[in-house]
Amino acid sequence: MLEDLKKKVFEANMQLVRYGLVVLTWGNASEIDRDSGLVVIKPSGVAYDCMKPDDMVVVDLNGNVVEGNLNPSSDTATHIELYRNFEGIGGIVHTHSSWACSWAQAGRDINAYGTTHADFANCAVPCARGLTEQEVNGQYERNTGKVIVEEFIKRNISAQECPAVLVHRHGPFAWGKDSMKAVENALILEEVAKMASRTERIAMADKNSNIGIEQYLLDKHYQRKHGKNAYYGQKN
Amino acid sequence: MLEDLKKKVFEANMQLVRYGLVVLTWGNASEIDRDSGLVVIKPSGVAYDCMKPDDMVVVDLNGNVVEGNLNPSSDTATHIELYRNFEGIGGIVHTHSSWACSWAQAGRDINAYGTTHADFANCAVPCARGLTEQEVNGQYERNTGKVIVEEFIKRNISAQECPAVLVHRHGPFAWGKDSMKAVENALILEEVAKMASRTERIAMADKNSNIGIEQYLLDKHYQRKHGKNAYYGQKN
Amino acid sequence: MLEDLKKKVFEANMQLVRYGLVVLTWGNASEIDRDSGLVVIKPSGVAYDCMKPDDMVVVDLNGNVVEGNLNPSSDTATHIELYRNFEGIGGIVHTHSSWACSWAQAGRDINAYGTTHADFANCAVPCARGLTEQEVNGQYERNTGKVIVEEFIKRNISAQECPAVLVHRHGPFAWGKDSMKAVENALILEEVAKMASRTERIAMADKNSNIGIEQYLLDKHYQRKHGKNAYYGQKN
Amino acid sequence: MLEDLKKKVFEANMQLVRYGLVVLTWGNASEIDRDSGLVVIKPSGVAYDCMKPDDMVVVDLNGNVVEGNLNPSSDTATHIELYRNFEGIGGIVHTHSSWACSWAQAGRDINAYGTTHADFANCAVPCARGLTEQEVNGQYERNTGKVIVEEFIKRNISAQECPAVLVHRHGPFAWGKDSMKAVENALILEEVAKMASRTERIAMADKNSNIGIEQYLLDKHYQRKHGKNAYYGQKN
Repeated sequence: MLEDLKKKVFEANMQLVRYGLVVLTWGNASEIDRDSGLVVIKPSGVAYDCMKPDDMVVVDLNGNVVEGNLNPSSDTATHIELYRNFEGIGGIVHTHSSWACSWAQAGRDINAYGTTHADFANCAVPCARGLTEQEVNGQYERNTGKVIVEEFIKRNISAQECPAVLVHRHGPFAWGKDSMKAVENALILEEVAKMASRTERIAMADKNSNIGIEQYLLDKHYQRKHGKNAYYGQKN
Repeated sequence: MLEDLKKKVFEANMQLVRYGLVVLTWGNASEIDRDSGLVVIKPSGVAYDCMKPDDMVVVDLNGNVVEGNLNPSSDTATHIELYRNFEGIGGIVHTHSSWACSWAQAGRDINAYGTTHADFANCAVPCARGLTEQEVNGQYERNTGKVIVEEFIKRNISAQECPAVLVHRHGPFAWGKDSMKAVENALILEEVAKMASRTERIAMADKNSNIGIEQYLLDKHYQRKHGKNAYYGQKN
Repeated sequence: MLEDLKKKVFEANMQLVRYGLVVLTWGNASEIDRDSGLVVIKPSGVAYDCMKPDDMVVVDLNGNVVEGNLNPSSDTATHIELYRNFEGIGGIVHTHSSWACSWAQAGRDINAYGTTHADFANCAVPCARGLTEQEVNGQYERNTGKVIVEEFIKRNISAQECPAVLVHRHGPFAWGKDSMKAVENALILEEVAKMASRTERIAMADKNSNIGIEQYLLDKHYQRKHGKNAYYGQKN
Repeated sequence: MLEDLKKKVFEANMQLVRYGLVVLTWGNASEIDRDSGLVVIKPSGVAYDCMKPDDMVVVDLNGNVVEGNLNPSSDTATHIELYRNFEGIGGIVHTHSSWACSWAQAGRDINAYGTTHADFANCAVPCARGLTEQEVNGQYERNTGKVIVEEFIKRNISAQECPAVLVHRHGPFAWGKDSMKAVENALILEEVAKMASRTERIAMADKNSNIGIEQYLLDKHYQRKHGKNAYYGQKN
């Protein structure tokens, strides 16, 4: 069942290791088959260097395991909540990459400080509000997804405009049209998070420095890569 | 004697190199055979790329060398003191990994700032009090162990709840059910120490930022991984 | 057409990956054949690990594609503007390397703090002024080049004296006699940018510290490597 | 002539690359044959990946090239000055490693903040005074060596007690009984420099934190590794 997708999701998970975004059993990547509504996801707590494509777990959008001998990622309910609400996305990645987690732990949005950010998202990467005690002690992982979706609605931004979010005190989720694109976005997020903190530090050492990308430059870069008349890259 | 354990401890030591936690001859990993009360430990001052499984040294819980042609790690007495007092543990690792050492040199506990920490320990990672001049000039390495144990008693935390400690002005010790788990915990500690300092730096740049994980979120993450009803990972 | 130069420019682009200066499809290297006035440049948005020498695109100094099946780098017009105005240079590199971008995002020149900088440039690495809204919404990439050239004229420095620039809110361009030398300069710039920020941080922790290389030491190092009587390296 | 020593010095230079202490043509390692008074040193400005053992240059203690087709390192006169004055040493290394250079650029000693430092040196690693304009415009490289020696005399420390120094606005020199030991010391210096800056940063975030290793702990660690009754490592 979904053998090709299992291989693809396996590869996306292994790419997290190669990009240095995960260690040990941390992180997870998934992809949805929109036709069947089935999601293929990494098993929980399995070390990357022991993992095989067949270890990937198939779940439906109610969180039931449809195929697989292993437990799915403990974050599966968050993935599902995002797939249910962000209809344009096909792949999701969660990591504990150091810089993005550090912003999440500080409870701060990653503001847009330059064109690397603007090539990625057309707004700050939001740090969602913290979960309440009740939300944590209830359906924790599902509520994590609900709070992410709530944040995007409240800010009136779409999952296409900003392919990542920070979960408060926790870490990043990133997404894209498929699992590989989600992995790429998790990598870009980490680079953007690293640069943003370094930018603040460098600016702090000079009183004449000001930071924050100009709106027209943000728009230009976002549109030249993602807009209707985008001209970055090759025509398909 | 204990040939399998020597191979395992050798592998654990080599894993320290692969994880980037040690350079040159720094650091050491050990494991205890609780049945015989014998400890297998890295030899002192031997470079990792020359080391063989047979170079591992066997010592008893009084610190006597039972087998081996080389001197055991100069930190052996610290390991033994921990094995004697932390009965649940089977493996110990000491490194000079940069971020954990930097917290130790600053004499600060690593506060719990997020879920990466909560997945690891259910409290701050303690920085033990400094040794007195008398303690340093007496049985220094054994006293290092005593001060660690004293700190855990004083704070009323168990070695299970917090699998690592910072020795003041020195660096980290980490432990686990065996030497491989201790290595993993040394790696996680380094990631947590790095993230904690970055979190403080990112928070410092925004007056509205506050840091410190909420107790209920800490509990949730610690319990979902280590509690009685843990659901992270696979059933054994 | 220009097969050897395509191979060389391909190699220069791959070197950016090996030096850790680019990820994914970021960055680009080019080289000009001054005799024909043709420029060979990386195609836009192509991943480095799929790229072949034949994918390099040949453009003329008016920006017309002369050969190649792929779109040239979206930054091609910036390269061309620099080749037209900086006559001594033969190769250009653009990256989003983290430290140089962070200085660019902070809008600051990289001041000369030591001899590593002086071996590279005989002045601060300028951060060019930001583009106006009109410049961004017009011929953006060409205007980026114009603003760089304007900055060098305004400061009365030559492209030889300083082989790199920071584009405001964006990132670095570096150049040299050919594409390989431009790659080297992009690497040195990143090292210099990293050291400069660390220098400020270390100085900030001690009130007695002062920073900024003395002019006579800057001159000495710049001249011993690049001056008429240079004695660094081997005679050709 | 001195073929074995050339191979050894070549290997020491290549080790600088493997340890990540140098890029491009930066840095150099040398070793002296005390019997003949001849020094083998890296050629100037040669890339590490093209270098062969036969490219090493032999110079005498007056700086004359005795054998070799290439120019010796531009820093040769500094090496010679150190060999002439620090009689106990056999190998010297110069790098532009990032953290040590950043302390040098800030003009600060690296204070002893923990046992990693104490295992290495029994005092702060000195940042030598800056050279005067006259010293820079005279025999610059030789004067660099003279100022290092002057600093050690003024502070009453020996080359054995502290196997490294920071040259003001420039970077580190490290030494040891041979070139390989000098390389090791250059690596340790970089680790110590990195940890020291991180320690200051972590301490800065907590008003209750104090830094600086206690003298008795410094002595203990220095002596257990380098003292008359040292017990770290193996008996020879």
